[in-house]
Amino acid sequence: MSYSVVGQSVPRVDAREKVSGSALYTGDMMLPHMLIGKVLRSPFAHAKIISIDTSKAKELPGVKVVLTYEDTPKILWNSAGFPPSPGAILVEDQYILTNKARYVGDGIAAVAAVDEATAVQALELIEVEYEVLPALMNIERAMSDGAVLIHEAEKNIYGHTPVVIGDIDAGFADADFVFEDTYYVPKVNQVSLEPCGVSMAAPDKDGRITIWTSTQMPHLVRSITAHALGLKTGQIRIIKPPVGGAFGSRLGVVNEPIAALLAMKVGQPVMLKYTREEAFLATESRHPITMTIKTGVKKDGTFTARQLTSYIDGGAYATHTPSLAGPVAGWFLAMYKSPNIKVDNYSVYTNSTQCGAFRGYGNPQVVFAVESQIDDIAERLGIDPLELRLKNHPCAGEVWLWSGWVIESCGFEECIASGAKAIEWTKKRSKIGNESSHQGSKKRGVGMGYMMHVSGARPMLHETSAAMIKINEDGTANLIYSNSDCGQGAGTSLSQIAAEELGIPFEDVMITKTADTDVAGFDIGSHASRQTYSGGNSVKNAAAKAKQKILEMAAEMMETPVSELVVKGGRVWASNKSSEEPAKSVSIAEISHRAHFGSHGNQIIGVVSEEPPGNPPVYAAQFVEVEVDTETGIVEVLRVVAAHDVGTAINPAIVEGQIEGAIQQGIGYALTEEYCYDQESGKPLNPNLSDYKILTSVDMPQIETILVEAACDTGPFGAKSVGESGLVATAAAIANAVYNAIGIRFKELPMTPERVLAALQNKNK
Amino acid sequence: MSYSVVGQSVPRVDAREKVSGSALYTGDMMLPHMLIGKVLRSPFAHAKIISIDTSKAKELPGVKVVLTYEDTPKILWNSAGFPPSPGAILVEDQYILTNKARYVGDGIAAVAAVDEATAVQALELIEVEYEVLPALMNIERAMSDGAVLIHEAEKNIYGHTPVVIGDIDAGFADADFVFEDTYYVPKVNQVSLEPCGVSMAAPDKDGRITIWTSTQMPHLVRSITAHALGLKTGQIRIIKPPVGGAFGSRLGVVNEPIAALLAMKVGQPVMLKYTREEAFLATESRHPITMTIKTGVKKDGTFTARQLTSYIDGGAYATHTPSLAGPVAGWFLAMYKSPNIKVDNYSVYTNSTQCGAFRGYGNPQVVFAVESQIDDIAERLGIDPLELRLKNHPCAGEVWLWSGWVIESCGFEECIASGAKAIEWTKKRSKIGNESSHQGSKKRGVGMGYMMHVSGARPMLHETSAAMIKINEDGTANLIYSNSDCGQGAGTSLSQIAAEELGIPFEDVMITKTADTDVAGFDIGSHASRQTYSGGNSVKNAAAKAKQKILEMAAEMMETPVSELVVKGGRVWASNKSSEEPAKSVSIAEISHRAHFGSHGNQIIGVVSEEPPGNPPVYAAQFVEVEVDTETGIVEVLRVVAAHDVGTAINPAIVEGQIEGAIQQGIGYALTEEYCYDQESGKPLNPNLSDYKILTSVDMPQIETILVEAACDTGPFGAKSVGESGLVATAAAIANAVYNAIGIRFKELPMTPERVLAALQNKNK
Repeated sequence: MSYSVVGQSVPRVDAREKVSGSALYTGDMMLPHMLIGKVLRSPFAHAKIISIDTSKAKELPGVKVVLTYEDTPKILWNSAGFPPSPGAILVEDQYILTNKARYVGDGIAAVAAVDEATAVQALELIEVEYEVLPALMNIERAMSDGAVLIHEAEKNIYGHTPVVIGDIDAGFADADFVFEDTYYVPKVNQVSLEPCGVSMAAPDKDGRITIWTSTQMPHLVRSITAHALGLKTGQIRIIKPPVGGAFGSRLGVVNEPIAALLAMKVGQPVMLKYTREEAFLATESRHPITMTIKTGVKKDGTFTARQLTSYIDGGAYATHTPSLAGPVAGWFLAMYKSPNIKVDNYSVYTNSTQCGAFRGYGNPQVVFAVESQIDDIAERLGIDPLELRLKNHPCAGEVWLWSGWVIESCGFEECIASGAKAIEWTKKRSKIGNESSHQGSKKRGVGMGYMMHVSGARPMLHETSAAMIKINEDGTANLIYSNSDCGQGAGTSLSQIAAEELGIPFEDVMITKTADTDVAGFDIGSHASRQTYSGGNSVKNAAAKAKQKILEMAAEMMETPVSELVVKGGRVWASNKSSEEPAKSVSIAEISHRAHFGSHGNQIIGVVSEEPPGNPPVYAAQFVEVEVDTETGIVEVLRVVAAHDVGTAINPAIVEGQIEGAIQQGIGYALTEEYCYDQESGKPLNPNLSDYKILTSVDMPQIETILVEAACDTGPFGAKSVGESGLVATAAAIANAVYNAIGIRFKELPMTPERVLAALQNKNK
Repeated sequence: MSYSVVGQSVPRVDAREKVSGSALYTGDMMLPHMLIGKVLRSPFAHAKIISIDTSKAKELPGVKVVLTYEDTPKILWNSAGFPPSPGAILVEDQYILTNKARYVGDGIAAVAAVDEATAVQALELIEVEYEVLPALMNIERAMSDGAVLIHEAEKNIYGHTPVVIGDIDAGFADADFVFEDTYYVPKVNQVSLEPCGVSMAAPDKDGRITIWTSTQMPHLVRSITAHALGLKTGQIRIIKPPVGGAFGSRLGVVNEPIAALLAMKVGQPVMLKYTREEAFLATESRHPITMTIKTGVKKDGTFTARQLTSYIDGGAYATHTPSLAGPVAGWFLAMYKSPNIKVDNYSVYTNSTQCGAFRGYGNPQVVFAVESQIDDIAERLGIDPLELRLKNHPCAGEVWLWSGWVIESCGFEECIASGAKAIEWTKKRSKIGNESSHQGSKKRGVGMGYMMHVSGARPMLHETSAAMIKINEDGTANLIYSNSDCGQGAGTSLSQIAAEELGIPFEDVMITKTADTDVAGFDIGSHASRQTYSGGNSVKNAAAKAKQKILEMAAEMMETPVSELVVKGGRVWASNKSSEEPAKSVSIAEISHRAHFGSHGNQIIGVVSEEPPGNPPVYAAQFVEVEVDTETGIVEVLRVVAAHDVGTAINPAIVEGQIEGAIQQGIGYALTEEYCYDQESGKPLNPNLSDYKILTSVDMPQIETILVEAACDTGPFGAKSVGESGLVATAAAIANAVYNAIGIRFKELPMTPERVLAALQNKNK
């Protein structure tokens, strides 16, 4: 199918303001009489608060308000952003400010003052008496007999998600081989360029409060904040300025309720902007998970039984954790077919910062484990690992266990074929540490990982999207959607979808770069890679409604039935009765002008609020080549070939950018990133970018992105998704390549030089 | 008809933020890197610009940009805000900065600098060489033979609006008496508390520009500014913060194109905030008009011929003037019936600041003249002036010549009756300067004036309004309309209409207090008293659409047909089959929650873009009692009784506030206000609040407002209008009361102490 705007790498609508530095983020906002908020954080990982004396802080000139637990509504809430849905399991265990510290950095008090220096000084004047409790920094300690309870949950376990398909014992009995391995993935931070945790709240004195916030989900942040504050949803207005990266970190409220409570108490706007250290200390990271995978397999590679038992370290508060256990099961279930499957996921409290969403939402964890073991199985069975994957993955037309719905389209075979060719799989993938790749102490290897991911959250979550298209009097269009572009370029792609459907030039579609819950229809936000598929369908359907009205007016003006009209290039054309006649057309500008100012007297508007029609999976095969320096333990990724089935690529440059950026995070996950705590004191060891190692642009390997456009029927112009999929398989592919290079199977991430060296030394013993 | 929210004087939704001073107006806005703009103004009323040297200004540190005519797009435009319509006559004679000064204050150059002091200093460094031309400060000079042309218009006349009904000469021949008088009304300024002329423009580097502006018409300002700048309409986003009064002064662009041009040239936000003096010097005032009225009348008071010839002094640029000539004819035509009517209105250029809209839009001028003469006719015929008016005014069911449509409802008789009773007309209105009212040198008198006004602009203008209602997941509602509340309380009244139609509590309807053209449907703005009727109908119909969806969902949930359901108090109720059964109901919160998160998966939204169904006239009879001090010439208004037919009063307190505030302006028009120029140099004599005399609260008389609610079928819950009508008849009523007190007919406003004294001395001679 040929499109005019869809499929074009048009420049992003926010490109110039972003590169010129003129885009105004939440933290750039200013309001008259704006105060600066600061949060006092617990220095202890686990401690009861015996008393707080704020009197000295309150006396400091310039301090306008000091709040503690006593001042907060006594309403328990959960910060995770979910609509009420079957897959949303909300354990409500948070207060806006706590009376018991459960991690180092837990919010004990908050101040608002005329400037930052005064606010910081005020924090120092607050006197807190603590009763220190044992810090339970890992799941083993938290679940041990007699461990002190972080909340009221036996053995600190507060969730169990069991799934049973078939008869797992019979399945294992039927197997020729049974593999059982335990994997561990660490806590990692999203590290968005704009540190997580920036909001400004301004009460309007008439009972409403406006909150500017760097969020992924304006509407759900509105309802959670309203609940936490004991307000009506409509009393809160959320405005989302441009967001400097999110990656899941803003999937729910971050510090909006604190900013709002300060602002409401003092009656002035309050800006609450976390430092990078606070973003590490007090905002959500990716869950560390301990996963035991047991797989029964026939000699020919057929799976007879698959089992996952996982312990999810959710940190100090429940937030996303019990809900994440569902997708963790879903990712495992859906990857490979087996008549017998069993999953048990447990949610565990520890005294680390609460965990939440991070690009992939459990999938990178599961895929690392599953795809590591698959390679081991393939080796043991003597089957090419590509063959083993192709044999067992679910195909188009089969039921996809994640959703329970039939797979619409699947480009995985093509991903495997094109990716293997590009990486020269057959040539390069030979026995471990093959001689041709030997460069003195440096060993090369290639490996791959497969993944599938979602294009939304259905049916786990009710997934409403909304869009409105207004045709202006000059034929340009305003597109209003619940703008949750958090830097990924959704605004550009959605504008392309609108322009394509309306038949007008791309530059004639205008979007607001801020979202506003007072004016945009309800939308569950930017997550689950849903913006293009779910948001895009709403935009396309709103545009279609507007287009229908355009065609009806054109039919009247041109005295031609709608069925004989087409829209193209900003004009409505009548198909010629004969080739002799000149083409007849009328511009959308003329039609819209007539709509506004002719006898009709109304603007052409199309509005849609709807659930997306499905949730088609996307696929990827990522291939990497690594070089392991056996003297230093350093693993260098030389090359990545990322073959992704994304459905139709609305804007190929943006799609490639999503994949490349995600790979950067995936390599960090594999090799360098781990947010660490002292296991005794519970103090974070690296809450900063000196000690927490993310990759920079100079660390990046050569990346070749291959787009496999297996269009799906239900997507807008066939689009599926790409937001998260780029990093899901990367760590697994690297681990498999490292195995291929040096014959060592790493079951724990990251594969730091220290761990690689230690493993090499251990192997040589 | 009984309503739950309509008819209640609920507190305004912006009351607390206004009285506490926390509301943020355009001038309170701040943006990072915001510059301050300033305009260099001509010191001459009429002068060619020979040369401008901006080099020294540009060299001043802190100056970012200096613009002159050379830098402006060479596009002629007209600042008045009209949609393309039969009644919109647009003479395009303006540039953003001019190359020929046509009044003292005309914009010659503009600068943007890092702060105000630097910007002011930069203006002083701009060197301009002028060739001074004769200043034509009044219509006589402007129209005189050989007068220099201000623009290319013969005798400086650029518009003639003729209307002929019947045979005017035959009408006069048929009369028993013919009255012919010439009246003059001065130039007066709207003097909104927030000085007119404040906007901030911020270019977004991606080709769009956002303008925050204190305007009455966001969408039309968008299109005019786009035209003046040579941009597409959609490239501009207008955001209207709360407005501190407007009264017509912001009916079109004010300084938005200058702010935008500065911002675009420099690539930074520019705030352009006029001082009070600049608001006088360079923004639009009410038109001075010289009106000759000739009336033929039978002895019994029947009119045989009515003729108006007016010369409208539009000032230096056309803006509203040729279009205003239409309503000026309309007001005259529609007031009294006559078989023969003739109108000739001429638009004339002079070298004073351009004139535009001011509450009443020509009607206060016409009513002063017509109602002064009517009293003279009544006296001559020996008929009670109330009787003469009742005999000749058009009634409900008759054709209303303003619109050509049949009058829906008319409460004028009741206005006369209730007003006359309240003022004790029969008792107090006796012969001139009656003894009972004599207090030494102080003479008392009573007088009245009648007026009718519109509830919108149809059919002169195409009058699209838009509204959207979104029902939130907790049953609260967001109302989005093209918010043109300029301080009058429209947001509150429209919220009441939405709440009434939806059947939810008033406080559950939430509005944004800013308007935004990127998100709100097209609307022609706040003027012609159209917000409640036209805007209100859109809001009611959008709410009705949402309510229909609510009822359909309730029908499904309650298994009861929609026809048996009613909405009340936030719940949908089923009518009881028998009185035995308990009442069955479901809350809108439950319904909306189910809509969002049930199997439907969509938000309940109602959207409307439409023309209002009509334009019903409103009526008033204003009665005043004055005391004239014959020693000082001071006229004191002791009491005003304002009986107004407004249709249903949605919020009586707001309606009364509109009338009372307008009367304050009407008294100023009658007695104290005149914006004056030196007739030779053209320099304004009183562009400040020391020398331009508006009434303060302590100057106000006792006012009794009587609401006559002659509901009309087409208005929302029967509402008509009130925005402008309060001042239309005030000056005429005062002039008639002064005549009643001292027997002197003033045909020129204002009736200052000097003029009253001079007239008394002249009479005594």
